[in-house]
Order: sequence, then structure tokens, then C-alpha cells
Amino acid sequence: MTAGLQQGPGCPVPQVDLERVQLGHGSGGTMSAALLERCFLPHLANDTLAPLGDAAVFQAPAAELAFSTDTFVVHPLEFPGGDIGCLAVHGTVNDLAMMGATPKYLSVGFVLEEGLEMALLERIVASLARAARECGVPIATGDTKVVERGRGDGLYLNTAGIGAMTPGFAPRATLARAGDTIIVSGPLGRHGMAIMAAREGLRFEAEIESDTAPLHALVAALHDAVGQAIHVMRDPTRGGVASALNEIAAAAGVGMVLEERAFPIPEPVEAACEMLGLDPLYVANEGVLVALIAADAAGQALEVMRAHPAGAEAVAIGRVVDDHPGLVVLETRIGGRRVVDMLPGDQLPRIC
Amino acid sequence: MTAGLQQGPGCPVPQVDLERVQLGHGSGGTMSAALLERCFLPHLANDTLAPLGDAAVFQAPAAELAFSTDTFVVHPLEFPGGDIGCLAVHGTVNDLAMMGATPKYLSVGFVLEEGLEMALLERIVASLARAARECGVPIATGDTKVVERGRGDGLYLNTAGIGAMTPGFAPRATLARAGDTIIVSGPLGRHGMAIMAAREGLRFEAEIESDTAPLHALVAALHDAVGQAIHVMRDPTRGGVASALNEIAAAAGVGMVLEERAFPIPEPVEAACEMLGLDPLYVANEGVLVALIAADAAGQALEVMRAHPAGAEAVAIGRVVDDHPGLVVLETRIGGRRVVDMLPGDQLPRIC
Repeated sequence: MTAGLQQGPGCPVPQVDLERVQLGHGSGGTMSAALLERCFLPHLANDTLAPLGDAAVFQAPAAELAFSTDTFVVHPLEFPGGDIGCLAVHGTVNDLAMMGATPKYLSVGFVLEEGLEMALLERIVASLARAARECGVPIATGDTKVVERGRGDGLYLNTAGIGAMTPGFAPRATLARAGDTIIVSGPLGRHGMAIMAAREGLRFEAEIESDTAPLHALVAALHDAVGQAIHVMRDPTRGGVASALNEIAAAAGVGMVLEERAFPIPEPVEAACEMLGLDPLYVANEGVLVALIAADAAGQALEVMRAHPAGAEAVAIGRVVDDHPGLVVLETRIGGRRVVDMLPGDQLPRIC
Repeated sequence: MTAGLQQGPGCPVPQVDLERVQLGHGSGGTMSAALLERCFLPHLANDTLAPLGDAAVFQAPAAELAFSTDTFVVHPLEFPGGDIGCLAVHGTVNDLAMMGATPKYLSVGFVLEEGLEMALLERIVASLARAARECGVPIATGDTKVVERGRGDGLYLNTAGIGAMTPGFAPRATLARAGDTIIVSGPLGRHGMAIMAAREGLRFEAEIESDTAPLHALVAALHDAVGQAIHVMRDPTRGGVASALNEIAAAAGVGMVLEERAFPIPEPVEAACEMLGLDPLYVANEGVLVALIAADAAGQALEVMRAHPAGAEAVAIGRVVDDHPGLVVLETRIGGRRVVDMLPGDQLPRIC
């Protein structure tokens, strides 16, 4: 719909396109208030957000807190299996969950590009709100800015999150110990390859969907079952499993041995990676965790994870060793061994 | 400095410009790690950030918390009186302070545009770090993304902050009462006009500097002195004093009367606004608060504020009334009265 006044002869009238974001929506005035009322609040409304003050106020959810932030610049904004809205919720929820925290509150900051379709924005806000509800984490506070056409790419999103730590549970990289079993909770490489395919207009026999999903419930189930046998957890997003494991190996001064034949790479991901010359170990995941579990609890951990929807295809892919500290070594399908480094540069930009 | 390999005959070698941000710096791999090590950590390092996990972990700083976020897209990135780095700290610190909270922890999210000068980025990171130190608020956690050239504007920043609420102190819009004195803590319109002048290359007789500054110490002094006589506080950023007061009037269902002759508008701001056809009441401030104070404590409040560097030029500009609920009315210098509305659209885009 385009709202224009009646146009008299010789009198050009400015046309205001109500279907697209305009600079005035970022002014802090009545247009900002209208955007909030019409597009944001119908989806995001909750008791914590409701007072719409300069900040949200709530009781501290635990004696010890976790605090995390992530900005999302994924392109395209919508992709098979998700969109930037639910991704922004899952990303921060998962960062909190990897520290052993229960996610409790999120903030959200929007950077809108002038000209963004209102209908697209509203779909994304709805998806973000749905994901937050499904995670049981209210959007407590937010902010919106608008930049001129050509100074953004539709929409960038930031989320920050506060989580409640559980006493006695603080998995971290430096707890990795020789003997630990390295488990991944599901198939690898789906998010990165879904984005790549959507961006490049690639078609494969089977469509690859992003795995974007929250992991906090899986972590809670795992903690209930094996407790402090969980030494380290990471969500291998940018840089993939290879980069996450390299960081842990470096931080803990341990070595790792991975078994290539154990990797759960879906056939379409494998085919797409082969075609594009990419290594699935470096491709981003958004609904998978890597856990280092004390060896004697690894069997039970796998069982519990497989009983949970988010971990149905969990599998052990390797072990922590005393040898070659700081190095991640791959035992290949054909019996060779090679070092798996960190991702050096930009395999896939703007994946999250 | 440009790092190139020795070039053999007929062999074009890629040139990597180490003085500018590249897409690989957002990959999550070794280039991201190098950027963190070289540009971010030397300035931002602190005990909370140090473990560099997926989230920061710390003791809850109070039984009741405030949580706020703001994204900063100000253009230009550096301006007289400040830059996007210190602005991003002050903005969120002030949002927390307006709720009566003591700022305790910040997160920061960077969106870098490919090609951004490293030297500029480092100046901004240093400024952000300095502002955070001066506020006594560590950067607890952070994130960096890179977008392609032409998909950003150098740098966008998000900060989120956690503050500690003081029991019994919860100023908010709905506490505004007829009789309250409306006080501003300092000169109006400096930030917005400094940005405008820098952006448009305008020169005035006296340079206008942004007022960007933290307000939490001023709030603490005010609270120590007059306690719950502080009914409402707002930092009038986008939309200026006029929009902030309109929001309060609407939320509390009260009227307001402002005295134009009391407004502390610096002469260069007044002159610049006149030249550009802007109303200083709608221009953004980044180091000023508006407080609604119970009338019998207003004198003491002014005294305390004026004794503080951030409130040296504090002045009463009006009062809350029972009449015309929801309306802010201005008594002009020449004795007229007119309604001061909310800012409708985009007086000045990308001001913060």
C-alpha cells in the first residue's frame, strides 16, 4: 500500500511507502513508536518487556550468572530450515548452554536497512518471538536503528543473553583430560551448506536444511544423567568442529584423535562439500554441540543424548590423548593420519 | 603495510592488505583469533573477559537486576567530543542508570565492514575500553562479525549491559506526579548538533562538541541526597527532551508545562539549529538526564547535581501539572503557549 495525498495539478506529492522501512522508523519519535506497536510488540510482548523502560528489571535468576552476546549478519535472511530471527535466539541460547547455564533472558538489537520489506521484517520478528517462547526465554529489552539504503543488508540482529549457572557445574575448555570421549550431538555441516546452497542458488538432489535449534534442554538432560563427567561443551558454529576442537586442544594443552569414519556427515552435505571443495569439519553448525565426556560416562551420555530429540543422532567421533598436545589429528577412512588445523580464513562469510 | 609473497615472472600474487579489515577476520578461524589478540584484547582485557568462553560467568551483582541494550550506527564514527566507541559505553551505562541501576557488566558486538581501516578500528576499541574503565564496568563478553564492502558503514556497535538495582529505588515514568519539578542536568542539543556539523562539514564560530558522558555517578549522588523524591529519570537521546517528556506524560497521564526561557541551550547550538531549521528540544543528547523530582526536594536536587561535574549546569525547566493530561505545553519567551509534540519522523538519522 502506498499512502499519498490527493495530487493536485502540477503539485508533486511525496509518496510514503508504508510497506518498507524508512529512516524515520529509527528516529526515536512517533514513527519508531508506531513500528514498535505494529510490528514488534504483537509478537514479542511479555511481562518483563511490557514496561518498555530504558532497561528491563527482574530478580537475579541465580547466584552465579552467565552473560553472552552474538551479532547475526547471515545472508540470506531466510533459508531452508530457519531465518535470522530464530538463529539469533538459538545462537545466544546455545552459547549460554555451552557454559552450563540455563538461559533466562534475552535482549535484541535490530539494525534495519531503509527499504526493507515490512512483511519480511514481521516474519522475522515472529520467528524470533516463536523461538524465544519455545526456549522459555523472554525478550526482556530491545532497540531498533535504521541505516540508509546501501549501508546494511536488509537486517542485522544482535542478541545478548543472561543465564543461570547451576552450582558445581562449570564445563570449560581447560577441563579436557586425556581419555575423554569426544561426542557430537548430531549430523555435521547442515547450517553452513544450507546457507551456501540458498545463497548461490545451488540445487542438490535432497534439499539441505539448516540445523538451527536450541541445545539447552539437551544439555539439561545430559547434566541430569552424567553431571560433572561433562568436561567441555562447545557449539561448533563459525569455523566448524575443527576450529572448536583446536581451540579446546590449545586451551587445555591436550591432543585429540578423531576417526573420520565416525563423522556423521549427511550424504547431501558430503556431496555438496565435495562439489564446492569444502571440508565439512570446517562448516558451521547451529544446532549441534561437541562434548568432551569422561570416558567412563561416555556410554551413558550417548544413550541420554540419543533419547532426546536434539541429540537423536549423537555419536562419538574421537578421544582426547596425552600425545601431541595442542594438535587435533584425524585418522582417515583409508588409515592415514593428518593434522586438522583451525580454519585459517573465510571459508564461508556471513554464515551466522 | 601490504604483505605480498615474492612475485615470480607471470605469476600474479594476491596482495593482502593488513591495514584493513577483511572478510576472513569474521570467519571464526585464525584470522578472527589474530584480530582478537592484536586489536581487541590489548585494550579490553579484564578478569571477567579473560577465559574467552562462549559466555562470561560472574556472581549476580544484586538480588534485582536491570538489563538493557542499544545498537550504535552513528555517522561519522569519530566526531568532536567523542566517537562510536565511548558513545556505545555511555549509551548503555546511561540506560541502566535511568532505571536507578548501578551498571556492572557490558557486552559488545561489532559489525565491521570489509575495508575498515585497522588504525581507526583500534582507536575506537581503545576509546570504548577507556570509557568502560572510567565507568568501572568491564566488557565481560563480545562478538565480531564482518560484512562485505558496501553492506555496512565502517562499523556498527551493539552493547548490552547488566546493572544492580538498589532496593527501594525504582524511578519510572508512571511515578510522575502533578507538582514534580522537571530538571535537566546540563546544556541541551550538543550531541545532535555536533554530529550534524561533522557530517555536513558545517563550521560555526565555536565548535560544538558532543556531550557524550556517563551519568551513573550523578544519579548515585542524586539518590544519596534525595532518595525516592526522584520519581522519573530519562536520558533524552534520539527524539530529544521533547520526545522523552511526551513519553512520560503519556505513560503517567499527567500534563507538563515547560518554560522556554529556562532551557539551557548553548549559544552555538541555538545558532546552528536556527540556521538548519531544527528545534533544539528534539535534538539528541548523550550526557544529559531529565529528572522529575518531588517539588519539596527539587532545590536540594539541583544543588547536589550542580556540585557534580556531570550536572554542573543543571536547571529546572518546568513542572508536572494536573491539567491537559498527556500534553507537554511550552510557555514561550514572548508569553505564548504551544503544545510540544513527539518528534514525528527523522529529524536527524543515525545520530547514535
